[in-house]
Amino acid sequence: MNTWIDKTTVRTMLAERENPPFDVRKMSIAMHGNERMLKLKERQMLELERNPLFYMGDYHDLTKDELRERTMSRIASLVHYVTNESVEEFTKRMELIGLFDPGFWTRFGVHYGLFLGAIRSGATPNQFSYWMDKGVIGCNGMFGCFCMTELAHGSNVAGLETTATFDEKTDEFIIHTPHLGATKWWIGGAAQTATHGAVFAKLIVNGRSYGTKTFIVPLRNPQTFDLLPGINVGDIGKKMGRDSIDNGYVQFTNVRIPRAYMLMKHTQVTRDGEVREPPLQQLTYGALLQGRAAMVSDAANMAKKALTIAVRYAAVRRQFKSDPKEPLETQILDYPIHQRRLMPLLAQSVAFGFTALEMVRLYEETSQALEALEPGDPNLAATLELLKETHATSAGLKAFCTWATLESIDKARQACGGHGYSSYNGFASMYADFAVHCTWEGDNTILALQSGRSLIASYQDALEGKHLRAGCVYLNELQTVLQRTGRDADLDSLDGIQRGWDTVAAHAVKKAAEDFQACIDQGMSKDAANEKCSQVRFVAASVHSSCFIFRQFKQAVERLPLQSADDRKVQEHLALLARFYGLWQMEEKAAFFLRARWLSAEQLDLVQAKVSECCTRVRAFAIPLIDAFAISDHIINSPIGRADGNVYAEYFRLVRRNNPQGKPHPYFERVIKPFLFRPTGEGTMEDFDEAIGIDEEIKEIKEDQEAAAAEDAERKSKQEDQERIRKAEDEFK
Amino acid sequence: MNTWIDKTTVRTMLAERENPPFDVRKMSIAMHGNERMLKLKERQMLELERNPLFYMGDYHDLTKDELRERTMSRIASLVHYVTNESVEEFTKRMELIGLFDPGFWTRFGVHYGLFLGAIRSGATPNQFSYWMDKGVIGCNGMFGCFCMTELAHGSNVAGLETTATFDEKTDEFIIHTPHLGATKWWIGGAAQTATHGAVFAKLIVNGRSYGTKTFIVPLRNPQTFDLLPGINVGDIGKKMGRDSIDNGYVQFTNVRIPRAYMLMKHTQVTRDGEVREPPLQQLTYGALLQGRAAMVSDAANMAKKALTIAVRYAAVRRQFKSDPKEPLETQILDYPIHQRRLMPLLAQSVAFGFTALEMVRLYEETSQALEALEPGDPNLAATLELLKETHATSAGLKAFCTWATLESIDKARQACGGHGYSSYNGFASMYADFAVHCTWEGDNTILALQSGRSLIASYQDALEGKHLRAGCVYLNELQTVLQRTGRDADLDSLDGIQRGWDTVAAHAVKKAAEDFQACIDQGMSKDAANEKCSQVRFVAASVHSSCFIFRQFKQAVERLPLQSADDRKVQEHLALLARFYGLWQMEEKAAFFLRARWLSAEQLDLVQAKVSECCTRVRAFAIPLIDAFAISDHIINSPIGRADGNVYAEYFRLVRRNNPQGKPHPYFERVIKPFLFRPTGEGTMEDFDEAIGIDEEIKEIKEDQEAAAAEDAERKSKQEDQERIRKAEDEFK
Repeated sequence: MNTWIDKTTVRTMLAERENPPFDVRKMSIAMHGNERMLKLKERQMLELERNPLFYMGDYHDLTKDELRERTMSRIASLVHYVTNESVEEFTKRMELIGLFDPGFWTRFGVHYGLFLGAIRSGATPNQFSYWMDKGVIGCNGMFGCFCMTELAHGSNVAGLETTATFDEKTDEFIIHTPHLGATKWWIGGAAQTATHGAVFAKLIVNGRSYGTKTFIVPLRNPQTFDLLPGINVGDIGKKMGRDSIDNGYVQFTNVRIPRAYMLMKHTQVTRDGEVREPPLQQLTYGALLQGRAAMVSDAANMAKKALTIAVRYAAVRRQFKSDPKEPLETQILDYPIHQRRLMPLLAQSVAFGFTALEMVRLYEETSQALEALEPGDPNLAATLELLKETHATSAGLKAFCTWATLESIDKARQACGGHGYSSYNGFASMYADFAVHCTWEGDNTILALQSGRSLIASYQDALEGKHLRAGCVYLNELQTVLQRTGRDADLDSLDGIQRGWDTVAAHAVKKAAEDFQACIDQGMSKDAANEKCSQVRFVAASVHSSCFIFRQFKQAVERLPLQSADDRKVQEHLALLARFYGLWQMEEKAAFFLRARWLSAEQLDLVQAKVSECCTRVRAFAIPLIDAFAISDHIINSPIGRADGNVYAEYFRLVRRNNPQGKPHPYFERVIKPFLFRPTGEGTMEDFDEAIGIDEEIKEIKEDQEAAAAEDAERKSKQEDQERIRKAEDEFK
Repeated sequence: MNTWIDKTTVRTMLAERENPPFDVRKMSIAMHGNERMLKLKERQMLELERNPLFYMGDYHDLTKDELRERTMSRIASLVHYVTNESVEEFTKRMELIGLFDPGFWTRFGVHYGLFLGAIRSGATPNQFSYWMDKGVIGCNGMFGCFCMTELAHGSNVAGLETTATFDEKTDEFIIHTPHLGATKWWIGGAAQTATHGAVFAKLIVNGRSYGTKTFIVPLRNPQTFDLLPGINVGDIGKKMGRDSIDNGYVQFTNVRIPRAYMLMKHTQVTRDGEVREPPLQQLTYGALLQGRAAMVSDAANMAKKALTIAVRYAAVRRQFKSDPKEPLETQILDYPIHQRRLMPLLAQSVAFGFTALEMVRLYEETSQALEALEPGDPNLAATLELLKETHATSAGLKAFCTWATLESIDKARQACGGHGYSSYNGFASMYADFAVHCTWEGDNTILALQSGRSLIASYQDALEGKHLRAGCVYLNELQTVLQRTGRDADLDSLDGIQRGWDTVAAHAVKKAAEDFQACIDQGMSKDAANEKCSQVRFVAASVHSSCFIFRQFKQAVERLPLQSADDRKVQEHLALLARFYGLWQMEEKAAFFLRARWLSAEQLDLVQAKVSECCTRVRAFAIPLIDAFAISDHIINSPIGRADGNVYAEYFRLVRRNNPQGKPHPYFERVIKPFLFRPTGEGTMEDFDEAIGIDEEIKEIKEDQEAAAAEDAERKSKQEDQERIRKAEDEFK
């Protein structure tokens, strides 16, 4: 192996790309939705790769402070695009950066997504113009943060305790943190970046509380960055990941803001303290959807990135020989067990990709419908229905896709052996950065339960003959679906597999709905029944999600254009991946299939055999498939995941560049030398006793004391005798 | 909430400890094996807590270099105990430190476990004395590292490519790294600490290769720490976790060492190049056992630590109100779904604890038997049998226990919401540090397969009527066991649950053995058959491990002393936990129970209901149970996991101490100010075009060019005409 080019690994990788069974470009277009999106991505990847501020080679060795400073420079270099690019293009650019610097994505998103989003959705037209003029779009003289969560209140917005009390005398609100637990906590951008905060606080007017509203509160003098009076902001320091963003805490001590700094699109407070509340609250939920849809995309992309690394490395890594006559050891991707570790996850990442496309489409449909809505609109009911469904679907998908991707990242790491544990190969930061996706924008377990609750409602709707859309179509022909048994199990067609999922999902939802109804029938409150049935709700949501994802994948495959033999090849291979995903998830959730009697024990063995067979089939085109993911080496940022297969040479080069030799040892003189050459001969305890001779001395002391005591006793007894003699003499006197 | 004491959380925690249903001390003794071990642990925890070098409050903010320097100081402060404490005591001390500074544990272990271990097991008596005299025991003038793995060879010792060529002329070995891929990689302690390495290299004498042997190679001058000639050592830098240890790479370029530096207990090379090979190789496997047994203990302890934090925090954290009449929000530990998230993992951690005690006992039995062995010993066969079994059991347990604990750590983190993502609450480093357990000392998947292979062998032994020990007893009455069906399923007694596990494990092993045999019958080689059957082997190992762990837990409960009512209370509650573990694992692996027809669909519903019921029952005494784990706040090192419940106040204090306020902003002047107040008015593209007026100019240029072209064409056509006329005239001439 030459130090610069490792011919063996590079040749191995080249061989993997010979005669791919489909046109890689066409496959890539299919996975990106259309050619325009793929070209946009390629253009943006090139721009990012060539932007000197986005150099990634030293990323893993930056300290928290260095990382944050560089992130700020990156932000400055990208604001340009906010005003010069379409929203779609800019969203895609952010999505790409989120793949290699998720902390950047968060920090940028804190201002543009959360702070500006709060103003967009909460400000009146005049208020909106005011903040526009102040420079909110271009971060001119201001940068916002989003002060929602509190130290003792994570997910319960209604329970927030920061107060905003109206002072009619001065026409101001007084923002106040009543006690430690109400300290704003986890506030992204607060520690080092923000000049203003969108603060969630309980509105109090004339002693009455009106619930949580949003207030824009200036935090710092933008010219000096000094904190304004009454504001206490601190850094909450090291986190599991995303150290690019400066999360902080914020405490308000009687901070006064003008009345007009309350966002008043929905609720208004007049000059004389009248509070006008909005007729309808629900529509604000729309704001949550974008985040969740983005997280499904992110889950798909991050899983693809992790698998790109693990599968490419498995293709060039060789261990042991299956056949002693072979000159080289076996590629570990050729071992069936290694295929079992990676191929199902690969199929899953493709499934997530198509699901994300659908989720984004659904989000756009929903938000357009919401925006088009006018007061008294006859479409209100239908739009709310759509919103409810999108909300429930996105909640479940956010939960199960982010969980699955987090697991994929760590399984991919483990599949790379020891080298997966080096920071330079990327899994460590990928895991640590991604992990928070399971918690924020709704804890996954809670979201899964929300999705489960909505499924119970859909089940009841179906029983009442209401026609259900998209995700829950299987509930429309409930009785037919529930009657199906394994006898009609067709494991080879997508339709057959879909039938299985529909049946099993229907059973799981039925069980949840019936258990819930039983609790209601026993006289429980809805809340109590929901709590009691949380586990079955969770299970229903889990099975439904697999069913939903499979359906999206299947439909995406069926919708592909078929104008050429190349198109048909692409469809054929994606159909194989869809089938693989459906069967593998069936194996993973086999208990539900057995329990619903859709599979017999023997059929389950068959499912397992088919999954193993799919592993081998997909392995054959795994590298071309991954090439079609179209993620640049700059974004992959992992020497063992390089496209060209020159893994060891580049890994070594990177490690050596980031850990330069020849510098003096940082603590040899201070710690190691004194340790290695510490004076010995402290001696044992026996030596020590002998040296001091303490026992001899103790013996002498003891003897002296005893002698003295004996003397004393003698003296005393003499005294006593004399005393007695004297007394006796006295008596006889 | 006061800033220093949060009365609500502290009172809540106190209430959790009122009237525990068992004596916490007695419970603790039961879980530690005996009172002596518990007292030893308590003494050592106190010593560590009071050792100023083991201060943990700033741990998460140390840079890699600071961490490494402090670790070196810690090592220096502990060498004292190596010579003044029994091996048992010292092992326990290391186990404790491993719970809060796993990197320390590794760095210390590199010298004492691996380097010294290599000398112990590989040196002749004279060689051993030589290294003793050099100071190996007290690190006097030397510190060792263990140079096994290479950049391109992780797990395959036989494939290592570093060479040790005997030079008879000089009576030396030449140690050499032939190419980049053979660079020693991941070598703990190499980058900054080691003076010597125990180097695995291919022995070559007179051109013939004798396989991999161990050589002691001096790396640095201990007085100056300069690298010796031919040695290249570098730092491999940032890792996912364990940055306390300085992993490095080592390259040898024709490095000469005396012949006597090869460890020659097993293989000898004489002065004239004769190689004497050992009659028996197997016994060296014993060395692997200790590491694996320690990792099972570590998995148990680390899971207990993670759950201590998550369960304590769930006890004092309140979110939403189940009952609007209650003055306080509900403790989240009271929500059934939260119990479902944590209680099964809690039971599992207790199960792992008892399994670890048994694993350590088995290791000690095995290593004593190995040490007692003499040449020609009649016990050889029995001892090898024992070694084989311990080896297979420890392989499977290492894999499944470390996987489960890694999962527990992250589930515990997620159960703590956002605060789980703060480094200060400990999960981030716990996960990152622990993750490598799934990879080193044998990749988990590979170990699981080894365990599966050994189960197939045991199955064949059972068919031949051989009596099997401990873990595989269920194979002894194979036919009876396999015949059992759900009709005799008793889900309430430990015996009943054990029968279920025995049956299902027997079915899984049978399936693996039969698939394997079918491959052999088709004419496959053993290796090919093993590869082909890897997935069924894996499944067999997985089911067997749950079965084994349940059996250990059950037996431990049955062996508890029963001399008082208190003893019976302890046993009763541990029996509940054992049953809980057995049932929950049954639910987790339900597909195998359904497939083996040990459970029917209806019984599975019953299992799930019982698991939910166990969750609620265990929740009632979760805090006293966790107190019995006896892990000090110093080791927990997580404000939200504090014993006293004063979580928010201490969390805030810790964050503030580690991120002091009032310092100048690190990059405001350099980056933020120029960004917020950058000159605007770069202008749009239209402005720009207008300013330069390029389009007018282009128009002018175009007109000029067109005019010129027209002129040119006219001139050309005139030329052509004249040419034609000239030609015609010529023809007519």
